[in-house]
Amino acid sequence: MKTQIAIYCLLLLMSQSIWAQSQTSIKLFRFGPSGYEKPGVEYPDGRRLDVSEFGSDYNESFFETDGINRLKNWLATYAAQCLPVDKSVRIGPCVARPSKIVGIGLNYRDHAQEASMAIPKEPVIFLKATSSLSGPFDPIPMPPSSQKLDWEVEIAIVIGKKAALLSEQEAVNYIAGYALVNDVSERSYQLEGTGQWTKGKSFDGFGPLGPYFIPASQLPDPQHIALQLSVNEKVMQSSNTANMIFGINYLVSYISQYMTLLPGDVIITGTPAGVGLGHKPAVFLQVGDEVVLKGEGLGTQRQKVVPFKKDR
Amino acid sequence: MKTQIAIYCLLLLMSQSIWAQSQTSIKLFRFGPSGYEKPGVEYPDGRRLDVSEFGSDYNESFFETDGINRLKNWLATYAAQCLPVDKSVRIGPCVARPSKIVGIGLNYRDHAQEASMAIPKEPVIFLKATSSLSGPFDPIPMPPSSQKLDWEVEIAIVIGKKAALLSEQEAVNYIAGYALVNDVSERSYQLEGTGQWTKGKSFDGFGPLGPYFIPASQLPDPQHIALQLSVNEKVMQSSNTANMIFGINYLVSYISQYMTLLPGDVIITGTPAGVGLGHKPAVFLQVGDEVVLKGEGLGTQRQKVVPFKKDR
Repeated sequence: MKTQIAIYCLLLLMSQSIWAQSQTSIKLFRFGPSGYEKPGVEYPDGRRLDVSEFGSDYNESFFETDGINRLKNWLATYAAQCLPVDKSVRIGPCVARPSKIVGIGLNYRDHAQEASMAIPKEPVIFLKATSSLSGPFDPIPMPPSSQKLDWEVEIAIVIGKKAALLSEQEAVNYIAGYALVNDVSERSYQLEGTGQWTKGKSFDGFGPLGPYFIPASQLPDPQHIALQLSVNEKVMQSSNTANMIFGINYLVSYISQYMTLLPGDVIITGTPAGVGLGHKPAVFLQVGDEVVLKGEGLGTQRQKVVPFKKDR
Repeated sequence: MKTQIAIYCLLLLMSQSIWAQSQTSIKLFRFGPSGYEKPGVEYPDGRRLDVSEFGSDYNESFFETDGINRLKNWLATYAAQCLPVDKSVRIGPCVARPSKIVGIGLNYRDHAQEASMAIPKEPVIFLKATSSLSGPFDPIPMPPSSQKLDWEVEIAIVIGKKAALLSEQEAVNYIAGYALVNDVSERSYQLEGTGQWTKGKSFDGFGPLGPYFIPASQLPDPQHIALQLSVNEKVMQSSNTANMIFGINYLVSYISQYMTLLPGDVIITGTPAGVGLGHKPAVFLQVGDEVVLKGEGLGTQRQKVVPFKKDR
């Protein structure tokens, strides 16, 4: 009888420990030189750990195989053995290069108005080249021929499971989490001359993503997130994801009618009013300008505009 | 003296063998179940070898590290030990999933005219989701709400080296090779309602690529390649890459002003006249139709249109 009680108590303790672990808030981030980032986690007390030993970057296969919960379980045993991450290290994009970044255009009423465009009847979808992804504090390189470099604060969705032809009700189960993003845009490339928007959305460094990936379970209402962007300390955009025309679940469902979303894919959900193009007269970024973005619960980004330099 | 002559002869033989090897024509292809393809090569005599043991798929890192020449050198030693590839096995897309597929719109004068669109002053760029990639003989899945499923025979460029801000003269050195592609398009998604072309270009199976990747050194004039497409044995498109508005090197240079092309990236260069939308009245693909594509020196594709079935 004593043995039975002891076993029962042990099981109870174990289940509580697993439950406590799965309730632990962790923010995921990636650090190190561009192209060689390692995975890290940050605890609510600010402790940051290198979780390279977990054995997976935050990529398609991580999300496909319930990586967030596997990582939490792994941390329960191995956190004490992880190295700390130095405060001075570069922070990369918070997820590894996805198969695609789907952009949504004109998803805030006030932004459609400032851009002198009709409120869309359905979401406007474009793709942003994944080679544009960058870290949240990396400089924004200004292309040599750029005249109209602009900013867009947004909330990004990260997909958790392969998603095709979803209903809006199903969509919520296919979202792994969220992040802050600056959908940097060159308006003359995007809107003038021939062509499609992707041309003005895809230059290197046009996609600062992060600093954190926040698991969906830790962001109970992504549809009420305050977003703010300032340039040289002047607030330019200040809104809330509550003001979206098409909500987050609807967007995931809508896109999945036209293309299959893969685990780790990123959807950038559109920007509110206050972009450079929307000002009268328009204002655009110049070399030396500093852009700061804030997303409630998502962290802060800070970027300096620099001239683009070719690798070789 | 005898030894010296012997060594000299040996060196001469070796250098000739290496030279002969680098002159060997090989076509690269990928085979096996979707998502689990292995690399293969085909010799001019039709022999097909499984080159999994070479240790790399035809992906970004393969092209980045001069993979074609490394593979040729490897074959000089190991070809005899490679397994043959069975004729009945599925052929996949000829390169692994790239970071992006850049599409060019309206790049043949007669196609712009049939689509009632102006001849563009500069290339029209769009992105096609890489999740749409499929094998050259895979069926084309018709999305449930599709009304206007259409075909587009094209030549695809595969990038060999990271490319940003290239001149037209430099571009040729950044091209690894070529392949045949069907830029399957749903015209109501692409052109009606809101949105950008990508919406009609990105469904699963909308990107049959291959059967072969042909190294650029084996295709001396990619700007004179006959292209043909037929539906149910009726020739619908018949043209030549000589009729492009913007040539291959210009396209690579132009795109590289707006986004960095990575090794293994694919550019699909536009289609000539004869698409379904161009017919008066328009004709579109129906379930059961068979599409056959031919590209001079690039091989043949054959696809049957089937209803889309969800994985789960």
